[in-house]
Amino acid sequence: MKINGKPYRTIWPTADGSTVEVIDQTRLPHRFEIVRLSTVEEAANAIRTMIVRGAPLIGATAAYGLALALRDDASDEALDGAYDLLLATRPTAVNLRWALDRMRDSLRNRPREARAEIAWREAAAICNDDVETCRKIGEHGLTLLRRVAETKPGENVNVLTHCNAGWLACVDWGTALAPIYMAHDAGIPVHVWVDETRPRNQGASLTAFELGSHGVPHTIIADNAGGHLMQAARVDMAIVGTDRVARNGDAANKIGTYLKALAAQDNGVPFYVALPSSTIDWTLSAGGMIPIEERAASEVTHVPGRLPDGSVAMVDIAPAGSPAANPAFDVTPARLVTGFITERGICEASEAALRSLFPSQ
Amino acid sequence: MKINGKPYRTIWPTADGSTVEVIDQTRLPHRFEIVRLSTVEEAANAIRTMIVRGAPLIGATAAYGLALALRDDASDEALDGAYDLLLATRPTAVNLRWALDRMRDSLRNRPREARAEIAWREAAAICNDDVETCRKIGEHGLTLLRRVAETKPGENVNVLTHCNAGWLACVDWGTALAPIYMAHDAGIPVHVWVDETRPRNQGASLTAFELGSHGVPHTIIADNAGGHLMQAARVDMAIVGTDRVARNGDAANKIGTYLKALAAQDNGVPFYVALPSSTIDWTLSAGGMIPIEERAASEVTHVPGRLPDGSVAMVDIAPAGSPAANPAFDVTPARLVTGFITERGICEASEAALRSLFPSQ
Repeated sequence: MKINGKPYRTIWPTADGSTVEVIDQTRLPHRFEIVRLSTVEEAANAIRTMIVRGAPLIGATAAYGLALALRDDASDEALDGAYDLLLATRPTAVNLRWALDRMRDSLRNRPREARAEIAWREAAAICNDDVETCRKIGEHGLTLLRRVAETKPGENVNVLTHCNAGWLACVDWGTALAPIYMAHDAGIPVHVWVDETRPRNQGASLTAFELGSHGVPHTIIADNAGGHLMQAARVDMAIVGTDRVARNGDAANKIGTYLKALAAQDNGVPFYVALPSSTIDWTLSAGGMIPIEERAASEVTHVPGRLPDGSVAMVDIAPAGSPAANPAFDVTPARLVTGFITERGICEASEAALRSLFPSQ
Repeated sequence: MKINGKPYRTIWPTADGSTVEVIDQTRLPHRFEIVRLSTVEEAANAIRTMIVRGAPLIGATAAYGLALALRDDASDEALDGAYDLLLATRPTAVNLRWALDRMRDSLRNRPREARAEIAWREAAAICNDDVETCRKIGEHGLTLLRRVAETKPGENVNVLTHCNAGWLACVDWGTALAPIYMAHDAGIPVHVWVDETRPRNQGASLTAFELGSHGVPHTIIADNAGGHLMQAARVDMAIVGTDRVARNGDAANKIGTYLKALAAQDNGVPFYVALPSSTIDWTLSAGGMIPIEERAASEVTHVPGRLPDGSVAMVDIAPAGSPAANPAFDVTPARLVTGFITERGICEASEAALRSLFPSQ
């Protein structure tokens, strides 16, 4: 997608093929800065500190991280060490493990001297595949938005989203936002309610930024507001991303998603989860088994933003001595999900429906 | 309640009886500052700008505002003008109208020369009555917490609350927090999950401050986290305040309350609303008729807090050009409310139950 008219992906190899670059997402929306990753440690650190985030982009960055590791040492031990280092960076998104497994499968039993080159090509392929997958998710999701638009000609199609499952969370297009970009580009008057997504404000800082950069009408709201907007019939549909789907259709996503799914059900608002199939964890029978990351309390008590003079600072919003807790994800039960939007089409949130779309799993 | 060992109310007449003073709640938790209100305009402004907030305290401040107006001019016209000015400050909390009506009823048909003195005494009586009402709410609510404590000896009783319905929202004690203070003082190991309550952060700035000042164990959480904590069985009960209850039991409260009520029902967590009977609007048959205040977008996009050097500043968290919406309240349907905790006892959220507790209405 474009920033100031220039097309970007979220991760790309540098021209000499020796390093990769990423957009530093901790600096948005106030600064647009690019960070170079030259080693596996830098790649791991970028994931851990959320310079890159979003399940598909975490996977893509890990893939390049593994490729960077093999530049220095292509032994089995180095491969396993890099795999373990990268896998440990964040616990909830399963795309991390999926991408690392795909990398390892492509490298196992290959000569050491060829591994670095193979790894680099495979990481690039993971990125290209992600773009194509997201494009297909967008096309399938577009049919849903088109159907809503047909029921209310001349009026906005109001979509609520939580956190950032846009192109910044992927390599390009996004998952939840891909249908929205395609609808906007197709002339459907889509308007997005953007949950700010405390505590890290990925909605206000990333989703609003990328929608604004593309010219998609949107309105930032506190995470508390979505239920009220649904009660007032001001939301036609909710679309969110996910970090891991258990095979029964329970979906882990950014903390607070579950609350919006409850409100959607209570008000008859369709609630869709958009995902590439790499986000399905076929090994888990239910969402209760998904590990939920607990992040630093300071993410709740300290808020970064821009001061009136344009500089960026962090303010403390809590009283001294008040502790905070920061679970980063919650699990939305399959019963609250109207459907999954995948690269192979739309299906209901059940094991049978997932298996019929992805029979080889 | 006490701050640094010194007992305070949230509003009190100055020693010479000519003005009132209030705690500036826009400065907490970083500054403890007292503001003097000398005119009805200052009182109205204090309510409008949320120097004072919370349904009962809004009513108490309006009462003193009316009394201040009559100091200057005790005519019927001045009385009506002050009434209208104060009533227009904020739309959702009905205690404002209740307190103003009580004041006007006490003044109508009284000689002009006596009105200022009568009004001052009536405002003081409203404050004293509020303290006693909240004390009784605390005692009734305490029975609920004691019952939970008996089911899990030696373990914390975990109560989730949203926004601030503590003593800072009232004159003393609070509504939702009164039972918690009494439980804590009675040796029950109560622990409070404090929703930060975006966009104005009354949870993180006021509830955490007052619980911390009283020594009540608590943990600040993002508003998004409560559903996950309930799923994990880490919440025994939710208690919130309310700004207006329709006679069918629908309750308006700070935006986001509805989402927590949905999660409580989905997880079998009792969800109580604490209120003085002055918060019941007997004229409204259902919550859909309650006016919902829409506040400034800047409250969503700009967050006040403390910089590392100790100064207080406001940071902008959103991209330039992204609009925001800020509905300040939502309505929780009576079906999601386990019970009301009132000064006359606990009842279910229905017109029949409310009328049986308050038959004279």
